[in-house]
Amino acid sequence: MNKTTSKFSRDTRTEHDLIGAMEIPTASYFGIQTLRAVENFDISRSKLHHYPQLIRGLADVKAAAALANKELELLNPVIADAIVEACREIKHGKLHDQFVVDMVQGGAGTSTNMNANEVIANRALEILGFEKGDYTHCHPNNHVNLSQSTNDAYPTALKIALYRSIGELINALEKLIVVFREKGKEFAEVIKMGRTQLQDAVPMTLGQEFDAFATTLEEEVSRLSQNRQLLLETNMGATAIGTGINSDPEYTVICTRYLAEISDIAVVAADNLIEATSDTGVFIMNSSVIKRLAVKLSKICNDLRLLSSGPRTGLNEINLPPMQPGSSIMPGKVNPVIPEVVNQIAYKVIGNDLTVTMASEAGQLQLNVMEPIIAYSLMENIEMLINGINTLRSKCISGITANQDRCRDMVLNSIGLVTALNPYLGYEDSTRVAAEALRTGKGVYDIVLENKLIAQEELDEILKPENMIRPRRINKLK
Amino acid sequence: MNKTTSKFSRDTRTEHDLIGAMEIPTASYFGIQTLRAVENFDISRSKLHHYPQLIRGLADVKAAAALANKELELLNPVIADAIVEACREIKHGKLHDQFVVDMVQGGAGTSTNMNANEVIANRALEILGFEKGDYTHCHPNNHVNLSQSTNDAYPTALKIALYRSIGELINALEKLIVVFREKGKEFAEVIKMGRTQLQDAVPMTLGQEFDAFATTLEEEVSRLSQNRQLLLETNMGATAIGTGINSDPEYTVICTRYLAEISDIAVVAADNLIEATSDTGVFIMNSSVIKRLAVKLSKICNDLRLLSSGPRTGLNEINLPPMQPGSSIMPGKVNPVIPEVVNQIAYKVIGNDLTVTMASEAGQLQLNVMEPIIAYSLMENIEMLINGINTLRSKCISGITANQDRCRDMVLNSIGLVTALNPYLGYEDSTRVAAEALRTGKGVYDIVLENKLIAQEELDEILKPENMIRPRRINKLK
Amino acid sequence: MNKTTSKFSRDTRTEHDLIGAMEIPTASYFGIQTLRAVENFDISRSKLHHYPQLIRGLADVKAAAALANKELELLNPVIADAIVEACREIKHGKLHDQFVVDMVQGGAGTSTNMNANEVIANRALEILGFEKGDYTHCHPNNHVNLSQSTNDAYPTALKIALYRSIGELINALEKLIVVFREKGKEFAEVIKMGRTQLQDAVPMTLGQEFDAFATTLEEEVSRLSQNRQLLLETNMGATAIGTGINSDPEYTVICTRYLAEISDIAVVAADNLIEATSDTGVFIMNSSVIKRLAVKLSKICNDLRLLSSGPRTGLNEINLPPMQPGSSIMPGKVNPVIPEVVNQIAYKVIGNDLTVTMASEAGQLQLNVMEPIIAYSLMENIEMLINGINTLRSKCISGITANQDRCRDMVLNSIGLVTALNPYLGYEDSTRVAAEALRTGKGVYDIVLENKLIAQEELDEILKPENMIRPRRINKLK
Amino acid sequence: MNKTTSKFSRDTRTEHDLIGAMEIPTASYFGIQTLRAVENFDISRSKLHHYPQLIRGLADVKAAAALANKELELLNPVIADAIVEACREIKHGKLHDQFVVDMVQGGAGTSTNMNANEVIANRALEILGFEKGDYTHCHPNNHVNLSQSTNDAYPTALKIALYRSIGELINALEKLIVVFREKGKEFAEVIKMGRTQLQDAVPMTLGQEFDAFATTLEEEVSRLSQNRQLLLETNMGATAIGTGINSDPEYTVICTRYLAEISDIAVVAADNLIEATSDTGVFIMNSSVIKRLAVKLSKICNDLRLLSSGPRTGLNEINLPPMQPGSSIMPGKVNPVIPEVVNQIAYKVIGNDLTVTMASEAGQLQLNVMEPIIAYSLMENIEMLINGINTLRSKCISGITANQDRCRDMVLNSIGLVTALNPYLGYEDSTRVAAEALRTGKGVYDIVLENKLIAQEELDEILKPENMIRPRRINKLK
Repeated sequence: MNKTTSKFSRDTRTEHDLIGAMEIPTASYFGIQTLRAVENFDISRSKLHHYPQLIRGLADVKAAAALANKELELLNPVIADAIVEACREIKHGKLHDQFVVDMVQGGAGTSTNMNANEVIANRALEILGFEKGDYTHCHPNNHVNLSQSTNDAYPTALKIALYRSIGELINALEKLIVVFREKGKEFAEVIKMGRTQLQDAVPMTLGQEFDAFATTLEEEVSRLSQNRQLLLETNMGATAIGTGINSDPEYTVICTRYLAEISDIAVVAADNLIEATSDTGVFIMNSSVIKRLAVKLSKICNDLRLLSSGPRTGLNEINLPPMQPGSSIMPGKVNPVIPEVVNQIAYKVIGNDLTVTMASEAGQLQLNVMEPIIAYSLMENIEMLINGINTLRSKCISGITANQDRCRDMVLNSIGLVTALNPYLGYEDSTRVAAEALRTGKGVYDIVLENKLIAQEELDEILKPENMIRPRRINKLK
Repeated sequence: MNKTTSKFSRDTRTEHDLIGAMEIPTASYFGIQTLRAVENFDISRSKLHHYPQLIRGLADVKAAAALANKELELLNPVIADAIVEACREIKHGKLHDQFVVDMVQGGAGTSTNMNANEVIANRALEILGFEKGDYTHCHPNNHVNLSQSTNDAYPTALKIALYRSIGELINALEKLIVVFREKGKEFAEVIKMGRTQLQDAVPMTLGQEFDAFATTLEEEVSRLSQNRQLLLETNMGATAIGTGINSDPEYTVICTRYLAEISDIAVVAADNLIEATSDTGVFIMNSSVIKRLAVKLSKICNDLRLLSSGPRTGLNEINLPPMQPGSSIMPGKVNPVIPEVVNQIAYKVIGNDLTVTMASEAGQLQLNVMEPIIAYSLMENIEMLINGINTLRSKCISGITANQDRCRDMVLNSIGLVTALNPYLGYEDSTRVAAEALRTGKGVYDIVLENKLIAQEELDEILKPENMIRPRRINKLK
Repeated sequence: MNKTTSKFSRDTRTEHDLIGAMEIPTASYFGIQTLRAVENFDISRSKLHHYPQLIRGLADVKAAAALANKELELLNPVIADAIVEACREIKHGKLHDQFVVDMVQGGAGTSTNMNANEVIANRALEILGFEKGDYTHCHPNNHVNLSQSTNDAYPTALKIALYRSIGELINALEKLIVVFREKGKEFAEVIKMGRTQLQDAVPMTLGQEFDAFATTLEEEVSRLSQNRQLLLETNMGATAIGTGINSDPEYTVICTRYLAEISDIAVVAADNLIEATSDTGVFIMNSSVIKRLAVKLSKICNDLRLLSSGPRTGLNEINLPPMQPGSSIMPGKVNPVIPEVVNQIAYKVIGNDLTVTMASEAGQLQLNVMEPIIAYSLMENIEMLINGINTLRSKCISGITANQDRCRDMVLNSIGLVTALNPYLGYEDSTRVAAEALRTGKGVYDIVLENKLIAQEELDEILKPENMIRPRRINKLK
Repeated sequence: MNKTTSKFSRDTRTEHDLIGAMEIPTASYFGIQTLRAVENFDISRSKLHHYPQLIRGLADVKAAAALANKELELLNPVIADAIVEACREIKHGKLHDQFVVDMVQGGAGTSTNMNANEVIANRALEILGFEKGDYTHCHPNNHVNLSQSTNDAYPTALKIALYRSIGELINALEKLIVVFREKGKEFAEVIKMGRTQLQDAVPMTLGQEFDAFATTLEEEVSRLSQNRQLLLETNMGATAIGTGINSDPEYTVICTRYLAEISDIAVVAADNLIEATSDTGVFIMNSSVIKRLAVKLSKICNDLRLLSSGPRTGLNEINLPPMQPGSSIMPGKVNPVIPEVVNQIAYKVIGNDLTVTMASEAGQLQLNVMEPIIAYSLMENIEMLINGINTLRSKCISGITANQDRCRDMVLNSIGLVTALNPYLGYEDSTRVAAEALRTGKGVYDIVLENKLIAQEELDEILKPENMIRPRRINKLK
């Protein structure tokens, strides 16, 4: 008994392939090619079953192919129906533990594709009343993979998985946006100093600041929604290199139609299947958009950490909800741990985006053999971002409070107020007031009054918060 | 005489700012703030005048602002008209040598903005009949920069510059696509082996291969065109932080309208100017698309180098036009230098995309102070890509020839032919034929005949090139 | 009962912290702060127990601190001994399942540090004969973490973990080098064409090629060995920010001495603990070296895939051992799946290196809060590379065979032979011979003889393989 | 007259190469291959003459080769001496304007190598009393390039150029370190709050903070010095692919010895010239170290911008010297423009490091054809960093002043003081004090006294600044 099977069970069946024979545990739905892949690729801790959306994508693709083959009279209807039923079960969560290959694999996804083919074939055999492994009645290659190649089935399944996963990401993001909008309203009256280049600039409201967070993330919903449409272009029927060898002339259209029905996703066939088979541009594009979201989240979290810095020696404009003791040595210290973890997710996402870029560049001739690492990097990014966004929403943003008095005091004490006087005093006099304030530590308001530059009543009007946080008509020709 | 002015000329005028006074060469259209920037930022070899589209963008922005200020009766019409005229001249190429600040600068673009303000003010002064430096009649800040901040004027000018530059990039790309399409037609009858994972796969035509290059680049035209639309959202009227302080409530609408007219680009005002002022997402997006183009070009050039490898010990399917002797030691060697340079451009573009990503992530609070490096990286990328694409088209692709006999011989000699027999022989017998071919060195065709697996006539039909390069009806139920 | 505890068990104890109280499963060795971290950070699938070397590093650090505190009479010897014993057990593999926090976490590693403090405290309590949770007798903070902060304990543990893990990586690499050297000897007589720029260059042996792979990887052993020495500089005694607040003046020296003893690693205390506490340069450096290894492995795998391309339409100089059927549609196809997976590992490693870079750059003031993502990225990279290297060695390199005749035929047929004639014919005549060979398809040898450029005997001498693959005295003055 | 020559001059000479003939301006020292390269590669704005160190490296290499060839009696001593003299002149700055090829080029550096060969040959011809172009007396290939290939001469010249340039970088860095050390002393008594995770931590001095900047950069001097030693390994004698074809067996040793003499750099010959010819690991390594320096500088500049934030609504602990008006709209605003530009340089350096990584990974078989982009990226990085470091030193660090009172007030007002009480009050009571301080806004000092937790005299002792900023013996057993 060889060591391979000992991992699994005593009871085995024998399977053969191009390389030779292996013993497969009788209980296993996967077969020899999956087992070879498990032995060949023990690389990462991430296995196919960690990404159920990818399994669901494979199930949809295999079902659509079976239906197309059946309609084209290439596949026995009884076998086709059993395949479709097996796919339906898997789509709904069954047998996921049989999807055991490493996400990081050579062979351009062949191992993932064969893992699916074998599990589906064996489950279909059971449905048909046969033993697992009795492949004459339903063969992983000849029946489940009929009219397909890894090179069309795998990227198509991945696109469906990404389409759905990005949908989940958008949902998570939309919930976060709602909370930012609510905070925008809650803080609408909290006047504070805006800062550019970390230097005091001009007044704004904390509500405007949080509203801008909501707006900037809404753009991400738009970009994600727009770019995931690119995933709809699939290449079923391309077979090995896009020429469609060994597929029926009508197969692409029929299979794509079934795939759209089964998946409830409006997939369309690529016009040029040769281009579509080697090209991974759609993954770069979606990776870029996902990266952009990560960059924006990181920027927002940087801001949250700045605004909540302190409590005594920082900006201290807002309070993040305390989530855990901040220090093993400093009593009472509470840290912005949730924004911090989101920052780190962002760096990982950006790193993975580079992985996608390099993998895409490495494609050669009629196929990009590096697709598995693209798949893994993208799926990991989406999963971490969904987790991070949900965490940020529920454990941080929703509980933020404002230090309204502190915010207002900083405005009144600021030199930046002088900008509002610019249209009345001119740039030169304004600069002089600012310089005096900086030198003496006095307030701008007092200096202007002392020097009788503007009457108090007018000054009060100019410096009213509601007058400083939006455009305002100034009747003065230059 | 200080060392600063000695760089320029003996004759000087004195200018003042917040920091103090400096002598400015009389001949210079730029003023004290530009000169400070030149002294402060001696970082790279790339200066503002290397990027005329950025100067043109600044000219359009300043002209639009002047017209809006005039319409709002904030700016004396005579001064406004002189500013507009100065901008018009600059847009059409005048005084570009006065745009001297380093592309790599601190201050979020203030130096670039002030360089423009100063040159325009001094040229306007001349138009008005005054001496350069006589700023009471037209002041860089009070008149040229009226109702603006660097924080709206600079990114808006950059967006216009990028919009136009990407337009030029699209034009270059479209010309390249035409040549790929022509080659696709020229090579339509050249049957060759397709390769996946660098291993012999199944037949295709060289024309299909070049056509796929054209198609994949057409997608880039689409993506570039789609994403540059995002650049149309501008933030004129945001002033310092997006609250529009010191600007008229109607200014944003009016200024944006004038900007659209002058630039002939359909710019629109952002809904949320606070968000628009700190956000650099649009630059990430466009950088990503530009990077994707670079990745695709690199992949194509990798393929061209593979296909032309040899002449005797490589694939040798195509010949690239010889551009220069390839070796200082190996007589007669000719190298694929043009694809090689495009690969290297791609690596630089990808590096610059990372720079854009990091700079975007580094934005804090109400402004992203790292915009200058974003601007430089993007402008450099576009320029190098345009040069690379034009070089690739004119010095490589248009002169490629095919080694038709060699291509055909490799098909006939290949084991991959067996895939076409798969539907007739089944996977197991096909595998056996392949194994025998590999072991014996014989051809698949001969083995099939020797073993009488398929009659010669049928075999000839199956293996006809035109039957192997596209889908084909197979009447066999599985 | 809240949902948190339901994950674990019915029987609970109550623990308190700054934030409040929680129920902890009685069976758990971790406590309230770990549980908060588990709830706060559900981000990735990678948990602390996936990285046993990190747990072992923590155990060593905590033991060393306890011994130092005991020697300094800061800690009751009985408690100290129990802590040391608990650490010893954990180091040897016990209780690893209690290290449950996510590798991706906010708080600069506080959760990891507290997970260790809590597990050790509770195990020490058991050793002392108390119940878990009875912290008056051994407290996670007051006793286990005594004289420490996360900010010294965590990075020190990480450095020890990395030092050991890189040691394992070096071991794996050395085994791979041995196999490359063996192949270098095995192929010492296989004459083949060298290629530059994918174009035929001059002859070499396949043995030289594989020997160069061994040599280039030996440099990685040197670099890894050299740079992991930088990890020896630790900051125990720095406490919160490197000033050593709340630690004894002698503590750093004593603790570091114990740490060296216990870990059997020659750690030394940093001269400047403030610098050492915020700086992550050592991680960048080691990440860079690890990345360099990945780049080299990727280059080697690219070469292996090129050299084994074919079998009929590629270079086909070597054969990689077939590991699995290569295609779900193309019978008999075998792909270079092992090099392919190593390429993909390399892209992931390079992505993670970027993550490390960005996380390092994001450090602020007295601490780099992003250390957890640095830790995770580095540990993941090392693990994947070890797996990849072992796979490459055992499933690919060791089984490579050469196609000696094919290699020799390509040399004899090549135009590149002309380079060897250069010293005899001169650059101009050599170029002419090369051009004729290319035009006519004839061999260089024949053309030289036909044109009587060199006598056959001399020509045979010049073109002897052993004369072309190394320097050779040429008696000819130029 | 073709358009090429019109760029230069009317008077021309005719030169020939493998591709054909071209007219070369009589005044030009470069020849036909340089001119082809100029036409083929019009990619970037960076030309060879922008990097004088690269020209100097080429001059040293060519002189060393000539001397070795002379000693080996392969080269006429008269010609050799003329070549050496031409190289000497060029090394000292002559004819740099003749080095006109683009830094971004295909051909693995052949164009750069031939540009050097041609300029040297023509200058040697003049020295020998011949006309430029009269190559029978001194030929770019046959004499200047004798016993060399681009593949050894180019990377060797690059290594010398990098070695020297990194030397200049180290010099610039050392001057910056001196200034940081001086500031460390100047601020030795300025007590301030340390911050971790942007939250108030424990006291330290501003001097300690600046001293840590000096220390962290000293590590960069060490790393740069250590890693540039790797550049000393050169591959002269490798010729085309490292086998040394067409070179004398003694040539490598002799040439390397001359090169060390002429360059005054202790270059040594690589043991394995085949490995050394294709490997670019040394460039990755040095790029990584340069990147690490950039990351550290960026972190320091981030800190400087944080510490100088304000003046009223930020941390405001230090003042950076004002370099230029900070805003076109906000009077009196001064921004940290110098740190900002250094941040941006860092992002560019990190981007270029990625370019180097990708270019290294793209090397194939016996040569890395992407070396030119590696050369350009590294040279650009070093140049920008030198400029940035000098700017940072002279225009920022040297003029920094401290706001001593503000710093001290923040310490006294901080809750973080409670950490110093931890050993006396215990973690629980300390936490209670901290919580009360946060809730009430009171000071820790007052709360402790009010609650009579520690006597005033002892409390004063504990909270003495000099007692909080370093380790301190605490006589208390836990």
